Amino acid sequence: MSEKKLSTDSYKGVRDFFPQDMAVLRYIMNNWSKTAESFGYERYDASILEPSELYKSKGAENEELVNEQTYTFIDRGEREVTIRPEMTPTVARLIAGRRRDLSFPVRWYSIPNLFRYERPQRGRLREHWQFNCDLFGVTDYTADVELIALAYQTLIDFGATPDMFEIQINSRTEMIELYAKLGITDETTITAITRLTDRKKKISEAEYRDGLNQILNSSELVDQVINLVEDESGTNQIIEGLHELGIRNVKLDRTIARGFDYYTGTVFEIVDLDSENNRSMLGGGRYDNLTGLFGGESICGVGFGMGDVTMRDFLESHQLLPKQNLVTAPTLIIIPAETKNNLAGQKLAQQFRTRGIKTAVDIGNKKLGKKIADAAEANVRYALVIGDSEIKSLNFTLKNLELNSGLSGTIEELLTYLISHT
Amino acid sequence: MSEKKLSTDSYKGVRDFFPQDMAVLRYIMNNWSKTAESFGYERYDASILEPSELYKSKGAENEELVNEQTYTFIDRGEREVTIRPEMTPTVARLIAGRRRDLSFPVRWYSIPNLFRYERPQRGRLREHWQFNCDLFGVTDYTADVELIALAYQTLIDFGATPDMFEIQINSRTEMIELYAKLGITDETTITAITRLTDRKKKISEAEYRDGLNQILNSSELVDQVINLVEDESGTNQIIEGLHELGIRNVKLDRTIARGFDYYTGTVFEIVDLDSENNRSMLGGGRYDNLTGLFGGESICGVGFGMGDVTMRDFLESHQLLPKQNLVTAPTLIIIPAETKNNLAGQKLAQQFRTRGIKTAVDIGNKKLGKKIADAAEANVRYALVIGDSEIKSLNFTLKNLELNSGLSGTIEELLTYLISHT
Repeated sequence: MSEKKLSTDSYKGVRDFFPQDMAVLRYIMNNWSKTAESFGYERYDASILEPSELYKSKGAENEELVNEQTYTFIDRGEREVTIRPEMTPTVARLIAGRRRDLSFPVRWYSIPNLFRYERPQRGRLREHWQFNCDLFGVTDYTADVELIALAYQTLIDFGATPDMFEIQINSRTEMIELYAKLGITDETTITAITRLTDRKKKISEAEYRDGLNQILNSSELVDQVINLVEDESGTNQIIEGLHELGIRNVKLDRTIARGFDYYTGTVFEIVDLDSENNRSMLGGGRYDNLTGLFGGESICGVGFGMGDVTMRDFLESHQLLPKQNLVTAPTLIIIPAETKNNLAGQKLAQQFRTRGIKTAVDIGNKKLGKKIADAAEANVRYALVIGDSEIKSLNFTLKNLELNSGLSGTIEELLTYLISHT
Repeated sequence: MSEKKLSTDSYKGVRDFFPQDMAVLRYIMNNWSKTAESFGYERYDASILEPSELYKSKGAENEELVNEQTYTFIDRGEREVTIRPEMTPTVARLIAGRRRDLSFPVRWYSIPNLFRYERPQRGRLREHWQFNCDLFGVTDYTADVELIALAYQTLIDFGATPDMFEIQINSRTEMIELYAKLGITDETTITAITRLTDRKKKISEAEYRDGLNQILNSSELVDQVINLVEDESGTNQIIEGLHELGIRNVKLDRTIARGFDYYTGTVFEIVDLDSENNRSMLGGGRYDNLTGLFGGESICGVGFGMGDVTMRDFLESHQLLPKQNLVTAPTLIIIPAETKNNLAGQKLAQQFRTRGIKTAVDIGNKKLGKKIADAAEANVRYALVIGDSEIKSLNFTLKNLELNSGLSGTIEELLTYLISHT
């Protein structure tokens, strides 16, 4: 053993999941799974390590992203490896690799851990877990409706009500048509407007207008673009479809752009309406040809992603985390009165476990009273002390640590009670 | 989009989990969780990225391991980072960091993904998922009994029977005492014998004897050591304890050593008895002071780890993978007769989902017959075709794809049937 004491801190920007935090993460992941599977989505995964070229092939802009914002290194076999920063390139790789064996439409979901290299900053995380849902091989607009309905249902299944969040929808193809009607058809100009508009909610009205002026150099056109992007009165087939499914907290928002890769049609976000936490918590859209990089016929899709950190913030801000589901302690703790009763405690525990009662044995060295107090503190519901007299008489007392009450009987009687009360 | 076509292969030595393989992995992970929690173990996790010093501090031998057999790189902040190759240093870090808040005994488990840098070799994986269970803060031998009973129960809960595997137990402290009785007390000599004996099952009798001869230089002593390590007649308190719990497929095996780090007392392995797959699938032991590197009072523990790859091999070699649990398809598929019925299909699907039936809608472009055939192929159990006439009459036919039979009725009637049959 070395003399220098090691730090117990984690690596910078990543999280340790002690049991209480792990319980929250698992609660979130299990709910995600349940909703996705209720819609017939199948879970897949892949390794956190991917060949770097998977992220580099989308052009210069992306290459910069790979170099600056991902964990990328050279392995000993001279291969360039990246710790995945997003799941879309991976799922495209998997779908392209199995295209001949898959029967489309394909509905897939995953919950990967993703890493971004962020400059060290207080509170900025370098990793999160992300719920990814994709539907491949359907051009019909009802695929877009389905994905948005799935995103909506995910929140509802956590106990959210529609007044807590809003679905904001836009369409890239519609935007191109609308700009064309104003006479704006140049691709570079449209990209510049889109980038600026994407930031509209974060900047002032004056800043937005100034930005447009610089791009368009015509105050008339600037006014027309502002009217266009601020008009929320419109609707489209997808919004009508969602209404048909009873989903009403949805509006057209012409400022939604969702980055500049992948998406070619519908784009959408879900925004938390809590004033303390008013931000986007989910984003997605439609892409015409996600597997183009791998060759072969094009495969279209619709998908979305949402992270565990924003999900937890949403649940906490709306008080939707149910305490009961987050208890990690066993139901019953058997407390041997003396060390010599430890093995008898282990043997007794077997009987409870085989009948479905989560049971631990406190074989530590503390005094009896302290053991009972610790169990109550840890939210263990029942305690059962065994000493020589209990082992001899075969009569035991089950202590309810919540109510501070007791029940005496044979093991079979106590088991019957526990099975009907847990 | 670039012209060059990207490969759809994963990074070398890691695995893609398509839905069928993911279902097996999840089945394994869920079973691990259930057994651990039935014993009162709480789940924790940490990031896959750890400071490299966590693995370097155990001395020169380990430093070589970190440099040669792990993924270690320098981040942009000049920090040395390692993708975790094992979980023990991480759990020691977490326990040491929270020692003041934790109430011992602490029972923790985790299912981390672990990475080792192996030279590229056919079939050699660079990652696996590992089930880790640890009990901290108990010196009594019943802690060792508990961990081994938990390992045993894990296999039983997969449907294994005791004749399929064997628990092999040894004790480092007992070995030191036994060598001392033969007059062997030099630490370097004992380490050399232990390393050789650890490989005894993989080498010939002559090789083993030769090796001992080189270490001990006395044919009498060599004979005594061979008698000692081959003697399986002994027993100890832990084996007696396991017998008391009804666990009989356990034997003393003086060749078990379990590497050279951490463990200071009991060491154990579980071996698959299938002749085709006769190998160690689980290993663990007792350590006196796992948190020493972090300073403070010593904390002892007992723990074990087992991997998903050996677990799956065991389940497959003994035909223990249950088909039913591995179906990833939804229970019901709604098939619109024409594209114009797609939205009606989505609406109908909502009714089934809210009643707990996993339901997808085939909104693809294939012909009706092909859609039904694809659903049957994917192990979907029921199909429901909706066209204009069904929507008008409100009378639907539920097709059982397994039995190739049908049932007609209103949606409410079909729902009632499905709820009682799934």
